[in-house]
Order: sequence, then structure tokens, then C-alpha cells
Amino acid sequence: MSQRAEYHNLDDPSDGLFRELGPGLTTRIFPGEHAMLSVVTIAPNAIGTMHDHPEEQWGVLLEGTAIRFQGGEEIPVRQGDFWRTPGGVPHTMRAGPEGCRVLDIFAPPREAYRKAGKGFG
Amino acid sequence: MSQRAEYHNLDDPSDGLFRELGPGLTTRIFPGEHAMLSVVTIAPNAIGTMHDHPEEQWGVLLEGTAIRFQGGEEIPVRQGDFWRTPGGVPHTMRAGPEGCRVLDIFAPPREAYRKAGKGFG
Repeated sequence: MSQRAEYHNLDDPSDGLFRELGPGLTTRIFPGEHAMLSVVTIAPNAIGTMHDHPEEQWGVLLEGTAIRFQGGEEIPVRQGDFWRTPGGVPHTMRAGPEGCRVLDIFAPPREAYRKAGKGFG
Repeated sequence: MSQRAEYHNLDDPSDGLFRELGPGLTTRIFPGEHAMLSVVTIAPNAIGTMHDHPEEQWGVLLEGTAIRFQGGEEIPVRQGDFWRTPGGVPHTMRAGPEGCRVLDIFAPPREAYRKAGKGFG
């Protein structure tokens, strides 16, 4: 079987499962067997809902600036920063004045995100 | 417990477990519980050894260009491209003339990469 279907691009708006996480927060999700990638766009100054889930999460700040809220701490992040969020730790983000893009990685995959939809699951 | 130890930066050469994968290929590894990140630098025109492992792998081309060899196919990749490599599929990469940087994600973590060392494991 050709591997070509396994190739994607961060900037291709037509690829992935679209999800509106909340006002000003959208993502495109790419499910795998043991991990799931989520390419999140956050509008300027938009903030997500504090939430947690049992799956481990990693985030990579691709563009912009943000404040990361995780485990009761607020940590400013900039392009190139990345972080691990252990399962069960409450977290969210607020984008800086230019907005931001984040690559989120879930392991194992979040089952609720295997189809297009709305909300943080 | 503070979450600050969970924060890193792609460009911080002092962070992560250093591994020399092969001539012209080095990486810094960040192990988690269910996933492991690996920030790989490939020198201009350097090529890795074809190999496979049971863990699922994802790669994100952070900088530069490369040829991705996967499952008997050669696919040119550029900044922003990302791909999934299912467990057991043979793969490697050859950097383009300016070299490249790749973020690799392993799920589950590759146990051999939990400590600094040499080789593809």
C-alpha cells in the first residue's frame, strides 16, 4: 500500500478533521494508532476552556506567543517552545496579541477527536 | 509539583538526551510516559540508515528540505510537511543541500532512547 496518504502539511487548510474547540480556537486533527496530531489556531487574545483528560499531551508553539496555563501555573511561551502535559493535569492557553498556532500531540489518541466536531471533548 | 520542568525549546542545545544517530545526524530526546519527542538535525546531504521499529512515528519538517524514504517510496518534503510512519515500516531520510531539522514523535516511547547514546537503537 502506498504511504502517500500518510503525508500532510501544517499549512494545508483542506486536510485533517476540522474541530471548533471554542470561540477563536479551531483545529485540524490527524489521528494515528498510538498518537494523534492537532494543528490548533488561536485568534489574538482568545483563550480556551480549562480542561483535563487522561491522555498525555505535548504542545509545540509553531507561531506567535501565548500564555500556557498548566497545573495552576501560568507560563509565557514563544515560537519554538514545547511542553509536556501529563494526563490529568488541568490546562489551557491564551494567545498573545498576534494569535498563535500550536501543534498538539495526544498519546494515546483522544477517541472523541477521531471525528470532526465541536468542543474540547 | 511545579510543571516548569515540562517546558523546553526546540533551539536549546543544552536540553534533552543527546544521541548521535549516525554520521551527520544528531538528536536531542525528550521522553514522556506515552510519547517521546526527538529534535533531529541532519547535515547537508547526510542520510540515515534504513531501519524500522514497532513504535508508531510521526515526523515534522521544521527547517530545510529532505527526501523521505518510507515503505519503498521516496517522497520530497519541505518545511511544514509532516507524516506518520506506522510501526514496522522501513524508513530513513536524506537532507537536502542546506540540511534540515525534524521533530520526530514516537508513540509509545522507544525504550532504547531513554538514555543518551549512539545509533538508531
